[in-house]
Amino acid sequence: MSIVYWSSRQRGDIWQAWLAANAPDLPFYQWPETGDPCEVRYLVTWEIPEDLHKRFPNLAVIFSVGAGADQFMTAQIPDGVTVVRMIEPGLVDDMAAYITFSVVSLHRGIPRYLRQQQQQVWQKQDVPPASRCRVGLLGLGNLGQASARVLMSLGYSCSGWSRTPKSIAGMTSYVGDNQLAEFLKACDILVCLLPLTDRTRGILNRQLFDQLPHGAGLVHAGRGQHLDHQALIDALESGKISHAVVDVTDPEPLPEGHPFWTQANLWLTPHIASETHAESSVSVLLDNIRRHQQGKAMNGVVDLNRGY
Amino acid sequence: MSIVYWSSRQRGDIWQAWLAANAPDLPFYQWPETGDPCEVRYLVTWEIPEDLHKRFPNLAVIFSVGAGADQFMTAQIPDGVTVVRMIEPGLVDDMAAYITFSVVSLHRGIPRYLRQQQQQVWQKQDVPPASRCRVGLLGLGNLGQASARVLMSLGYSCSGWSRTPKSIAGMTSYVGDNQLAEFLKACDILVCLLPLTDRTRGILNRQLFDQLPHGAGLVHAGRGQHLDHQALIDALESGKISHAVVDVTDPEPLPEGHPFWTQANLWLTPHIASETHAESSVSVLLDNIRRHQQGKAMNGVVDLNRGY
Repeated sequence: MSIVYWSSRQRGDIWQAWLAANAPDLPFYQWPETGDPCEVRYLVTWEIPEDLHKRFPNLAVIFSVGAGADQFMTAQIPDGVTVVRMIEPGLVDDMAAYITFSVVSLHRGIPRYLRQQQQQVWQKQDVPPASRCRVGLLGLGNLGQASARVLMSLGYSCSGWSRTPKSIAGMTSYVGDNQLAEFLKACDILVCLLPLTDRTRGILNRQLFDQLPHGAGLVHAGRGQHLDHQALIDALESGKISHAVVDVTDPEPLPEGHPFWTQANLWLTPHIASETHAESSVSVLLDNIRRHQQGKAMNGVVDLNRGY
Repeated sequence: MSIVYWSSRQRGDIWQAWLAANAPDLPFYQWPETGDPCEVRYLVTWEIPEDLHKRFPNLAVIFSVGAGADQFMTAQIPDGVTVVRMIEPGLVDDMAAYITFSVVSLHRGIPRYLRQQQQQVWQKQDVPPASRCRVGLLGLGNLGQASARVLMSLGYSCSGWSRTPKSIAGMTSYVGDNQLAEFLKACDILVCLLPLTDRTRGILNRQLFDQLPHGAGLVHAGRGQHLDHQALIDALESGKISHAVVDVTDPEPLPEGHPFWTQANLWLTPHIASETHAESSVSVLLDNIRRHQQGKAMNGVVDLNRGY
């Protein structure tokens, strides 16, 4: 019974050493090494190899090294193989910190202050208190809930929208397509942390932006394919969206010459909002493997029909 | 028994309306109106007028409209008059949000990503997890403690330094001049939230910066006079400090042509980290006045000898 790992060598070396010390019964191979392919029960990867079934006939679980599993959805998952997303504290803290940085920047007008610095202008802007700044989270999974908790601790007024009903203390939750318009019209800052599925692809489009209050802020840390890039440019140009912080694009890396690079009221970061941390994630992986071995429910199991 | 208010008209109008509804027994005058000067027991102000004693012979309390009271220290406070700082939730949340924005920006390398955007470069930087990013807070009053709580909730490793011993769950506290060096050498990001007193004036100087790890970050949201401005420029030029976020300067506004405006690895904001909110502060003021009337201890009383 062994693990095959197919991702960054840097993280792989840390995991290998940690597992050798903490789970010596579980051989850990870094691709292209696999040991006996018939022994491989667990594959940890970002991408799924073609002919997966033939390579590892006894595979039981595919673990995504990241928070999302959308990259698996076009692949052929063999029958009986479970797919698990990574839910680990380092990744969640990273995202909550990035969202907080972005929301505070937009609420307090930091982009304008940095422009004023270039113009040598010392001028305060009036901003409403956090309690009157309405932050709306599209997506209320682990990452959305953790971000909302930090924002609410800073006094922000948070609401959320998700496909399935969620009850989270201190915030209003909206559910499904019917309540999307009502949610959007009360968002001074909209944060996208949705999973990428067939139903959410392209959701950040002109029609959605039109339903926001004029001058709303946007923080996009979901997936590049959620976003109609031209619609965002248009909304930023018209002032419908006052400023956007964007961490994900389609494609990545963003090609040279793309208008996002030079859009004055858009801050771009290269998909760094949240990453799986080698140190804090390996114990989560092992815990899930032990659960699987004992027939218990694993954390982060993906419903292949809904796609997350 | 009346209140005289001497500060921004915008806030004054909000307070006047609120107090008229909630404390009709307390006449509230906005300077230059005072009513009968002998009736004035409470002065709410940022600056202290000359000949204060003659103007309001029965004055009992001077309330600062801001979190600091350093601006009073050169004035003559009449004997028997108590000085009270503003401690109100809006101001505390504002500061915690600003400090969190600044720390996350420095830790995650946001200034570099914004430079990369200008160069159309998509390149991730390696950063340590928050748990290995050591944030040191100079000053552990209300603002420092609130900031530390949010940072710790995001996984940051926090320590603090103050003049008097503080015990705060989850963080190491250093005390007094003897422990300053030990504190500084473990600060990947140093945050200054000290009160301005004769003992802290000029504390952010070359000698202090030299004791930080090479490449540390600096967040300065205390007072402009804490900082030796030239020493910071030198530290930023040498790389001793990798990046600074500065909200306060001496003088304010910062004059045109000052090197801070054009220093590439310095972000400057015009003293906006934290402000007293009209809505959330007036009930704090009234609560303190009622406490005073009933002979109870007020919140935020300033020790005039130590200066905060």
